Amino acid sequence: MAIITLTTDFGSTAGYVAQMKAVLLRRSPDSVLVDVTHDVPPQNITAAAIWLADTLPWFPSGSVHLAVIDPGVGTSRKILVGTFECPNQSGINDQHFIVGPDNGLFSLLNIVDAWHLDETAMRTVRDVSNTFHGRDLMAPAAAAIAGGIPLSELGERRIDPVRFTLPKPEHRSDATSGSTEIRGKVLYADSFGNLITNIHTADCPSGHTITDGWIDCPNESAPISVRPVATYGDATPGEMVALTGSGGRVEFAVCNGSAAQRLGLTAYGAEPESLPSVTLRLIGADEP
Amino acid sequence: MAIITLTTDFGSTAGYVAQMKAVLLRRSPDSVLVDVTHDVPPQNITAAAIWLADTLPWFPSGSVHLAVIDPGVGTSRKILVGTFECPNQSGINDQHFIVGPDNGLFSLLNIVDAWHLDETAMRTVRDVSNTFHGRDLMAPAAAAIAGGIPLSELGERRIDPVRFTLPKPEHRSDATSGSTEIRGKVLYADSFGNLITNIHTADCPSGHTITDGWIDCPNESAPISVRPVATYGDATPGEMVALTGSGGRVEFAVCNGSAAQRLGLTAYGAEPESLPSVTLRLIGADEP
Amino acid sequence: MAIITLTTDFGSTAGYVAQMKAVLLRRSPDSVLVDVTHDVPPQNITAAAIWLADTLPWFPSGSVHLAVIDPGVGTSRKILVGTFECPNQSGINDQHFIVGPDNGLFSLLNIVDAWHLDETAMRTVRDVSNTFHGRDLMAPAAAAIAGGIPLSELGERRIDPVRFTLPKPEHRSDATSGSTEIRGKVLYADSFGNLITNIHTADCPSGHTITDGWIDCPNESAPISVRPVATYGDATPGEMVALTGSGGRVEFAVCNGSAAQRLGLTAYGAEPESLPSVTLRLIGADEP
Repeated sequence: MAIITLTTDFGSTAGYVAQMKAVLLRRSPDSVLVDVTHDVPPQNITAAAIWLADTLPWFPSGSVHLAVIDPGVGTSRKILVGTFECPNQSGINDQHFIVGPDNGLFSLLNIVDAWHLDETAMRTVRDVSNTFHGRDLMAPAAAAIAGGIPLSELGERRIDPVRFTLPKPEHRSDATSGSTEIRGKVLYADSFGNLITNIHTADCPSGHTITDGWIDCPNESAPISVRPVATYGDATPGEMVALTGSGGRVEFAVCNGSAAQRLGLTAYGAEPESLPSVTLRLIGADEP
Repeated sequence: MAIITLTTDFGSTAGYVAQMKAVLLRRSPDSVLVDVTHDVPPQNITAAAIWLADTLPWFPSGSVHLAVIDPGVGTSRKILVGTFECPNQSGINDQHFIVGPDNGLFSLLNIVDAWHLDETAMRTVRDVSNTFHGRDLMAPAAAAIAGGIPLSELGERRIDPVRFTLPKPEHRSDATSGSTEIRGKVLYADSFGNLITNIHTADCPSGHTITDGWIDCPNESAPISVRPVATYGDATPGEMVALTGSGGRVEFAVCNGSAAQRLGLTAYGAEPESLPSVTLRLIGADEP
Repeated sequence: MAIITLTTDFGSTAGYVAQMKAVLLRRSPDSVLVDVTHDVPPQNITAAAIWLADTLPWFPSGSVHLAVIDPGVGTSRKILVGTFECPNQSGINDQHFIVGPDNGLFSLLNIVDAWHLDETAMRTVRDVSNTFHGRDLMAPAAAAIAGGIPLSELGERRIDPVRFTLPKPEHRSDATSGSTEIRGKVLYADSFGNLITNIHTADCPSGHTITDGWIDCPNESAPISVRPVATYGDATPGEMVALTGSGGRVEFAVCNGSAAQRLGLTAYGAEPESLPSVTLRLIGADEP
């Protein structure tokens, strides 16, 4: 009995996710299917990579993880099958299997081995669509791995998968005022139009309080001051605020609205240089 | 171990889908439950029939498919139990079981046998609600079928289930300009307010490009010209565009908005004659 | 094989629910996981308690129910493990297990035994987060219960769990006109901004018709008259109406809009006294 997880940007309408599950259950009837999420912002590989890195290591060793955020479907992009390792709660390394487009989706995991799927061998269905390789090629590959077929029999050669790294925020301490300024970047807009940044609570001095925030859009002449709040309950409807989201990352959001729309951003799939920079000022840190 | 799929218009709030799953697991503890979608546009049998026809054949032969889009619950409409056949990837006919209101939901599948559920025999719960036959009658029927009970023991007599057909688009070629005009109909509005038409890519000449589009609402004096685009990324916020959706059907949509709302349509459950007509002009086809 | 149900206010984005499922499957690989809903209005214990009471009793006896609506995470609030009983369709009492924050979530179920989780004993992960006890403490407890560990081995002492009761609507009959007035309260706003009241169809005289409705907001000088309708199809876009929702409760809603927003309410987690009162007038009842 193998666990197969599914992560896509298909949303919950129509039956696309169900079609993948149907293929998985045809070929691997004993597998246990678990949804990670199907609400990745459309075609947003950065958001997906963050969510996958936060979630996949919690699953048991040996799980197979199928992720289909695939803006390059139909192009020459290849399909990746591979493994990543991560230490489990006992400090022992777990090994997991991954299947997805080779477009950076698994960048933030520790990939230890990777092949490009031999698509010809997988084309056992009569017609492989040009638009839905998740169902026609990747799901059959995931089912084969769940059934115990070695990766080396599925792939053409060992590869270096496509990877990206997240930009690191910059810290600057002001010894006089005892404050710290952190300058970061918006990484993506989620489905609510909230702008998720690369500033993570874990990167901030412990015991800090955010006192000021600014967002600096390429299409604006000056940074916009944004009030930091602890929760949405502290914001007034329509106000833009900065707060720490449930994933530990600082977000810029419009209460009951869309920060992306307010700033004229279409962050889905936007080039990183077009995304705003953000600055936070922190005080009261216990340790610098 | 039987697969039971669930398709409804209940959305994800409250616990209605979970109540059906609870009944299924009480009566068929070994079954594997798979969600197709619970975001069918409310009471929209046309949309559901399209999504069911696109998705159910992917499941293994012998699967039981429970679909509850049931605007007639509490009226004299009957409950259908039956079978449909479809060729699988190997060209062999699979046989699937269906359970749902007899209102046309399964119209686009090849139904080969059908009965009306004997509701009296199924009324083993003390109270059958007037509003939730999906939980109180259809889920018990699906569990019984998953357990191997012959349909003929569940139903009162063989029937001709309610069926509808989708309107066919009309093609008109202009030999002089080398263009083709296709005139179709809006079939339904999805949850984003996108207007899904009966024009499918498979019906268009291969290698075509859509050059012009129009939508013709009964409540407008003249057709509105709509720009064809390849993806939402090519549209500006608020613009109405025509594009081919992920299901292969041409859609009319407002970027970051609702085309249904823009046109004053409440397409959910609307009578077909009140839905707009659409016209597309295509050029550059490889073959006429 | 045990059934474990999950109910949260996490929504479908990111991977929080999947992280809980991963922990459950690590520790209880044979369990069957069923989602009740993850769209409880954020931090709204009242809404969750209603949905749990409506849904959990449908599951088979012996099911384990994990519910994480946990605004007090990180405070001194305790974690509840316990059992509730309910009569099943055969009139025999089923017994179910519950795990969740001790904040009133299970108030509307018949709890028969309860302990506070011994958190120290459960801290087998190296780091327990301050913000996600659902994954780090409650999921391990649920998996332990599914594995057959007695509750008394998980908890510190028998307790009286936190409970609340829903306010009862007041009835007043007018013998002259034959009408009845029912005065109730808004209990919560759902994710569409619909205002759900404590007036349930089961509390109304059978065969009744609602002829008039009013909503009385603390921040308005006079009650607002609201038209009763049978379905959303009877309302015009933007109109505020009163109708009976699919759960049997009377709702006040704005067609294609948000009643909560219209009335300036942020009902999520609002104090009960700040929520509006509502009045309905009914006529034509078969029996008083």
